[in-house]
Amino acid sequence: MSATQDPPPRTGPIRLGPHARAALRPTADPVVAGGFWARRQEVVAHAGIPQGPLLLESAGNLHDLRLAAGKATGEFRGDYPFMDSDVYKWLEAASWQLARLHPDSPEGRRLADDVERIIGLVADAQQPDGYLNTWFQAGKGRGPFTDLRWGHELYCAGHLIQAAVAHHRATGREQLLTVARRFADHIDATFGPADSGKPIDGIDGHPEVETALVELYRETGERRYLDLAGYFVDSFGRGLLGGETYCQDRVPVRSARHVEGHAVRQLYLLAAVADLATETEDAQLRAAGERLWSEMATTKTYLTGGVGAHHDKEEFGDPYELPTERAYCETCASVASIQFSWRMALLTGSARYSDLIERTLFNGFLSGMSLDGERWLYINPLQVRDGHTDQGGDKSARRTRWFRCACCPPNVMRLAASFEHYISSTDGRGIQLHQYTQGTFRGEVSEVPVVVSVNTDYPWQGRIAFTVDESATDEPWTLSLRIPQWSSGFTVQYPDGALDENTAALDDGWLRLTRSWKPGERAVLELDMEPRFTQADPRVDAVRGCVAIERGPLVYCLEQVDHPGGGLDEIVIDTSRPLTAKHRPDLLGAVTTVLAGGHRRAIPERGWWPYPSSDTAEFVPRENGAAAPIELTAIPYYAWANRRDGSMRVWLPTS
Amino acid sequence: MSATQDPPPRTGPIRLGPHARAALRPTADPVVAGGFWARRQEVVAHAGIPQGPLLLESAGNLHDLRLAAGKATGEFRGDYPFMDSDVYKWLEAASWQLARLHPDSPEGRRLADDVERIIGLVADAQQPDGYLNTWFQAGKGRGPFTDLRWGHELYCAGHLIQAAVAHHRATGREQLLTVARRFADHIDATFGPADSGKPIDGIDGHPEVETALVELYRETGERRYLDLAGYFVDSFGRGLLGGETYCQDRVPVRSARHVEGHAVRQLYLLAAVADLATETEDAQLRAAGERLWSEMATTKTYLTGGVGAHHDKEEFGDPYELPTERAYCETCASVASIQFSWRMALLTGSARYSDLIERTLFNGFLSGMSLDGERWLYINPLQVRDGHTDQGGDKSARRTRWFRCACCPPNVMRLAASFEHYISSTDGRGIQLHQYTQGTFRGEVSEVPVVVSVNTDYPWQGRIAFTVDESATDEPWTLSLRIPQWSSGFTVQYPDGALDENTAALDDGWLRLTRSWKPGERAVLELDMEPRFTQADPRVDAVRGCVAIERGPLVYCLEQVDHPGGGLDEIVIDTSRPLTAKHRPDLLGAVTTVLAGGHRRAIPERGWWPYPSSDTAEFVPRENGAAAPIELTAIPYYAWANRRDGSMRVWLPTS
Repeated sequence: MSATQDPPPRTGPIRLGPHARAALRPTADPVVAGGFWARRQEVVAHAGIPQGPLLLESAGNLHDLRLAAGKATGEFRGDYPFMDSDVYKWLEAASWQLARLHPDSPEGRRLADDVERIIGLVADAQQPDGYLNTWFQAGKGRGPFTDLRWGHELYCAGHLIQAAVAHHRATGREQLLTVARRFADHIDATFGPADSGKPIDGIDGHPEVETALVELYRETGERRYLDLAGYFVDSFGRGLLGGETYCQDRVPVRSARHVEGHAVRQLYLLAAVADLATETEDAQLRAAGERLWSEMATTKTYLTGGVGAHHDKEEFGDPYELPTERAYCETCASVASIQFSWRMALLTGSARYSDLIERTLFNGFLSGMSLDGERWLYINPLQVRDGHTDQGGDKSARRTRWFRCACCPPNVMRLAASFEHYISSTDGRGIQLHQYTQGTFRGEVSEVPVVVSVNTDYPWQGRIAFTVDESATDEPWTLSLRIPQWSSGFTVQYPDGALDENTAALDDGWLRLTRSWKPGERAVLELDMEPRFTQADPRVDAVRGCVAIERGPLVYCLEQVDHPGGGLDEIVIDTSRPLTAKHRPDLLGAVTTVLAGGHRRAIPERGWWPYPSSDTAEFVPRENGAAAPIELTAIPYYAWANRRDGSMRVWLPTS
Repeated sequence: MSATQDPPPRTGPIRLGPHARAALRPTADPVVAGGFWARRQEVVAHAGIPQGPLLLESAGNLHDLRLAAGKATGEFRGDYPFMDSDVYKWLEAASWQLARLHPDSPEGRRLADDVERIIGLVADAQQPDGYLNTWFQAGKGRGPFTDLRWGHELYCAGHLIQAAVAHHRATGREQLLTVARRFADHIDATFGPADSGKPIDGIDGHPEVETALVELYRETGERRYLDLAGYFVDSFGRGLLGGETYCQDRVPVRSARHVEGHAVRQLYLLAAVADLATETEDAQLRAAGERLWSEMATTKTYLTGGVGAHHDKEEFGDPYELPTERAYCETCASVASIQFSWRMALLTGSARYSDLIERTLFNGFLSGMSLDGERWLYINPLQVRDGHTDQGGDKSARRTRWFRCACCPPNVMRLAASFEHYISSTDGRGIQLHQYTQGTFRGEVSEVPVVVSVNTDYPWQGRIAFTVDESATDEPWTLSLRIPQWSSGFTVQYPDGALDENTAALDDGWLRLTRSWKPGERAVLELDMEPRFTQADPRVDAVRGCVAIERGPLVYCLEQVDHPGGGLDEIVIDTSRPLTAKHRPDLLGAVTTVLAGGHRRAIPERGWWPYPSSDTAEFVPRENGAAAPIELTAIPYYAWANRRDGSMRVWLPTS
């Protein structure tokens, strides 16, 4: 590899290897331009990413790199051995952003300078043997690789590798990739099976390096990185970390029956499982990915796509244990879920994975970032109560400028900055559109490129127009449109006629439009955007007797600020009154609200004990409900907590 | 004080000081004999307490004492700086038990020998300056009183003091009290306000020493212990521990509006608040105790009396945030709640405090110990799901022989072994019976003792018979009977006639029977023990659309083992079918079960996404419910998890 003058093709976080076997593969040079997601990307580009260096400076991360390089003195700053990973995730985000900027624009030059400078700090901090972790280099802990359970050294290495791959793909430059390879080579020389002669038969308590090593193999062609990833993945569940569920060490992933333990750890591990299944055709790993994804989606995922029910240990809960008031739903877990799902989408070609991605993107992921891109949520609960006693901090329902444990903000940045790479794919016989956003996306037909541009005001409008921009082939090919899992009705108009939900046969979630597409030809998909009530499986105890409001891919919520005159927890929704959508350009950066009918229930006075029995007058078998109706205004969940502190609810009692 | 040949009067954990101002005071020599609680005490006496020394030996606690005394070598054992407190709580339990045994019985001699031996270890471990904490003496941490937030040294001192007071009250012997006083004197010389000239202006991260110091003042008459307790109590909320909510340091207790932070810490602190209000007539502290108790009882207490909703940090949750599936309800928090409530009961004379004690004793406390007294629950959830993925450990829904963090078992032992001291009190004009259990209890009438014996098969039967055994006064006096908060109907027969819920005027929860009681005269209270359905305040989201089953003071639950043929989470209860009680001498050591009607709901197949919307066929507005009826067998909650592992539910969906 060498630096090149021409801009490289803009590939994203995944570029399949030459021997990969996947149903679909990502294509280069996707463009998101205009519309909902472009605006979110702009916010990240103008707030989060440019502010990163300052925040990393004030939180101590950059100081720690200088300290390791011998270019600063003083104490290590920050409380965690994974401080470096925040830097790497920011570098990854900035790299994806760089790829989008003209290198000679003031903005491009400024960002390139920041990236260059911080890569320099990283390179300087690296030890001659390739090792790099500022916590241990600062003398915290007992030395390199002595605390694999909590040391996070391979975890940080994984983020370094992902940043380096992003930087290389985005700029063609090698400096960070060289650093990453040196560390990867050091790890490869250090870790291996007991009979390999390498010093340590071990794994990191936090999976991450595995998926990164697969990508490093893809980027460099070095097979030993793939093998090392395979060794690591199959070493979880061997008891190397004391069999801890939290660290994914209780059971080998090949035989696991359910997702468990720390949600981000589980999902980064599963991303690597999908990567390895893709690159090595390992059917058992593929089956594990499919099985565990289904178990997660069906029994352990919130309506918002959020995962990880427990605050305690940031873990998955039991099946259907999805409490709203203590939903943890770490923002990072949404990122990890999207990464795992996207790899499964490519591997299998099934649309359901992108269904979950859409839901997570628009709700449990996007809620993690404030509308102005300057404040963050670490957790994404589905309810904040009246009388909430939260006092702030990382695990708070209040948006925060930065966290003591700052894993989430740069994780949001790197996904948002590479968002366009999660939209489209090709199977060599056309193009699949997984997400609907304005922009231009490529596919291939027998190695001939085809290009489709998309015009839409989705998710506010259900109309999505596709125009074939390029199709230098006479071969028939297929424009595959994902019909969202949430959709009950649609129509599609295209040159061969019209279809709707009654006449179209969906193929594993896809609507396939096959013809000899010519440039300029169009298809228009219209999804039914009527707002709707949504229930949960009755086993989700936490929301019994409640409905949620949804519209299109968006989950809605009530916020206290829109409902003065009483608490949210007194509100009952009336499902017999219709829901109506109302676009509000003035509100929360322009959102479509949903208006609903309800009332405030009278809560009987009961003395000091809140549990009346059937032999007392306070026991109310059914609500008598003569209360005066009130109007409810639901806003998209992703936009909550951008105004005043107060209560919030996604699930609303029906009586 | 000196040792005495006569057995001292058997006083309990609280003996008010000479200047105390309380509505009620505890009386000496209560006897629980026969019946429900006597059997529970026997189990503790024959399983838990005698096994304690062996368990403390194998968990390392006794080794650590020897290590501190220089009589053992090797490493400190155990993971916590509060290992000593397990020894002290066991010593307290054993002391209460010793008071009940004849000193010349084989059992009495054996237990006395164990207590003597372990007190010897404690005494040997104490430093010449009075300091005693084996963790720090073993060189763990940076030395005495350098880590007040987590060091638990004053916490351990508190338990040492309570054990010493118990041992002194139970046996008249001074050895342990001397150790405790030496440590207390060392603490008093070390801690004080900034202007006191003492080295440290500080508090322990875990309140406990405060209530213990008040009792040490009561036992020794040394006023400075009371003053030290007052200094500590008022130092929480000053930011000495960084203002941490967890450690009760966010806000001074005098101005606190809600219980918060670590539940046990909050409640031990509040026990001291009640103690100080009692001994110093501090109206502001009394008001804080009343206010915070009400806030806790009304908004943060489970039906079982359990408190502390969050696993994370073992904290109180928000008001009405009472999830069943992740109810933490630490067993120690139930103990602490009872201790706080009992002090408030004595201070105020209001029956509600003993209402909550009864509920907690029979449910959230008793569930912490297995029926055979050999296994324990650290947490006491109200639901274990079908498909539960718990893998055991301290915070498990499986009973465990001992814990890595073994605070709960000896805490249960010390409360159970002193249980008879929570039954009765006197106001100098008669006797108040707070709890109903077979036994003999004293009161006073103008300093003349009166004695009432109680005969009952409570809680299985509602009939409670009271006989005046002693009344050497012609003065009229009052037998006060608590009419339980849960009771909707009762009758009482006594020499002056009969009363029922329509004719009796209750006085702050008390039924007052005033007359010139003569020995041999009786009263019989009959409480309505019909099983009943119980609801929660609608703000308790977690149990919306559910009822619980209760009978008398007992909360009931369903267990999987009694309901083969499907999961518990599919069961719907039919509240239109009557509940019937059935005593089962064969089951779980003899319990009254409650039989109910219900059915298993069919859960629609929905594909991979568990949230159907109103525009899809899977959306079910109301259950159509043509399912075949099934019989449900509810058992007392305290007896759960004594058979096979499996799911469990207290709250049952009604549709």
